[in-house]
Amino acid sequence: MADSPALVAAQEQFRDELIAHGLLIPSGVPGLYGRSHIFEDVIERFDDLITASAKDDKAERIRFPPVINRAHFEHSQYLKSMPQLAGAVHSFAGTPAEHEKLLQLVHEGQDWTGCLKMTDVVLTPAACYPLYPMLAEQAALGPEGRLMDVYSYCFRHEPSPDPARMQIFRMREFVRVAPDPGQVRVWRDLWLERGLGILAAIGLDCSTAPANDQFFGRGGRMLAVNQRDQQLKFEAVYPMTSTERPTALLSFNYHQDHFGTLYGIKSREGAVVHTACVGFGMERVALALFKTHGFHTNAWPTSVRQSLWPSA
Amino acid sequence: MADSPALVAAQEQFRDELIAHGLLIPSGVPGLYGRSHIFEDVIERFDDLITASAKDDKAERIRFPPVINRAHFEHSQYLKSMPQLAGAVHSFAGTPAEHEKLLQLVHEGQDWTGCLKMTDVVLTPAACYPLYPMLAEQAALGPEGRLMDVYSYCFRHEPSPDPARMQIFRMREFVRVAPDPGQVRVWRDLWLERGLGILAAIGLDCSTAPANDQFFGRGGRMLAVNQRDQQLKFEAVYPMTSTERPTALLSFNYHQDHFGTLYGIKSREGAVVHTACVGFGMERVALALFKTHGFHTNAWPTSVRQSLWPSA
Repeated sequence: MADSPALVAAQEQFRDELIAHGLLIPSGVPGLYGRSHIFEDVIERFDDLITASAKDDKAERIRFPPVINRAHFEHSQYLKSMPQLAGAVHSFAGTPAEHEKLLQLVHEGQDWTGCLKMTDVVLTPAACYPLYPMLAEQAALGPEGRLMDVYSYCFRHEPSPDPARMQIFRMREFVRVAPDPGQVRVWRDLWLERGLGILAAIGLDCSTAPANDQFFGRGGRMLAVNQRDQQLKFEAVYPMTSTERPTALLSFNYHQDHFGTLYGIKSREGAVVHTACVGFGMERVALALFKTHGFHTNAWPTSVRQSLWPSA
Repeated sequence: MADSPALVAAQEQFRDELIAHGLLIPSGVPGLYGRSHIFEDVIERFDDLITASAKDDKAERIRFPPVINRAHFEHSQYLKSMPQLAGAVHSFAGTPAEHEKLLQLVHEGQDWTGCLKMTDVVLTPAACYPLYPMLAEQAALGPEGRLMDVYSYCFRHEPSPDPARMQIFRMREFVRVAPDPGQVRVWRDLWLERGLGILAAIGLDCSTAPANDQFFGRGGRMLAVNQRDQQLKFEAVYPMTSTERPTALLSFNYHQDHFGTLYGIKSREGAVVHTACVGFGMERVALALFKTHGFHTNAWPTSVRQSLWPSA
């Protein structure tokens, strides 16, 4: 469902206010912005707040760069379900004569796609994607499974005037992997509560709602209905620019054995593991803070400031 | 000049040691790795050390994501000088029937390039690239110019077994922009000294040497000779896996009026500005630390630990 003209106008107004206050820097491409040091500080402090809230879990902290192995990505079925959002990386590997042709096309403002070849990498679609092939390569899991902490820039090709729908944005994720589906679901449900608490501590009162991914095409509608019926995906949503169409700040996904089966992640007993993830949309949380508490962080409510800058 | 078999063997050995110690996580693609929390902590603490060393400069801190506007990139002449390193982002925007074809090609292990179209973004080639179009859009510069602080993941398509030649890595840069070429050169020369001091404080004794970019093709050789003759580029190099072919940890580039002219960055008097940048290769610094002081950070020399973890 496309956004209504009134909603688009509200999104554009918020975007323009963020730019006027110097928090986002326009790039000339919809959904691509530079960030001011104030915007970045809010993101970093919120990242710290998440870390502090999850400290006792002792998750394994790993960081992946914003591109991943293309072969792993092809294997992920992302191209089946959300091909329109993916970003493949192409490079030039031609002769000097082909280089001349490339430069000529660029000079004439023509499409130079034909001069490039696909590389072995694609942009990271979600922070947890590089994790599953890694887990499959490592030792089989014990009965308690593993708990992972990842964070990276993610790419989604969906140019939009909505500042909350960036083409490239950061996602902080925790991922639970275990042979016992019950353990994985319990962990996801624990985060449903904890996630709302973290957001409430910074003055963002969210509600949770069943949700579905933006599956592509006619077959995608079936997948979406199935995902909702089975309550596999929830989102913590916040009325950023609309109460009717609130924005997801945090999503909770129970994948069942989807990634376990795809990549062959198994327990020591040979059982396919179940997985779930919880992911914070970092830019969206920062935007919700500016929208709610104003464009000047030093005028934010004391309780919010104490949560984000505890040592100040 | 290609690396000798002995050097490649040394690079591979170092890479395998980093993997065996869990500091880098292989992805199946050369030059693409996950990072352990210890590796990331070293990067973050070195980033803090740079910030502390440059504190009095009061540089303007801005952060850009790891993709930039393609039109700005096309305008940059990067495709002229280093096309082989660039990464363009392509996406699917077809019909359900074209989607079927895409999935069929992926399933058969065939090239699916033809199903994609170029998007409006490319991967960031150097942290300072998004800065120049931004400066051109903003107010004309006063006589003192500006000093900028940027940091991002950068992409270079050069698959290599050398862990110091990653396809995607972080670059922390300061960029000086001013109408007076003398001011810009003096700032660059100040950093030649300061940069060596920062690296010496963590036990990395570097030397500086004139350098050139990896310009493409026959015309590129002329550009490289010219860059060296005019002493436009220096590098702080460290014997990571070879004393004959040391690794650049830090580079100092005086662009003259290259970016000022290209993007139309001007002073209030209408003069084209000069620019220079200094960029730390963050992964390379971390690798040099592990190579020099060992794979266990808690066994690093006290002086190095005090520089990186001053409050510990």
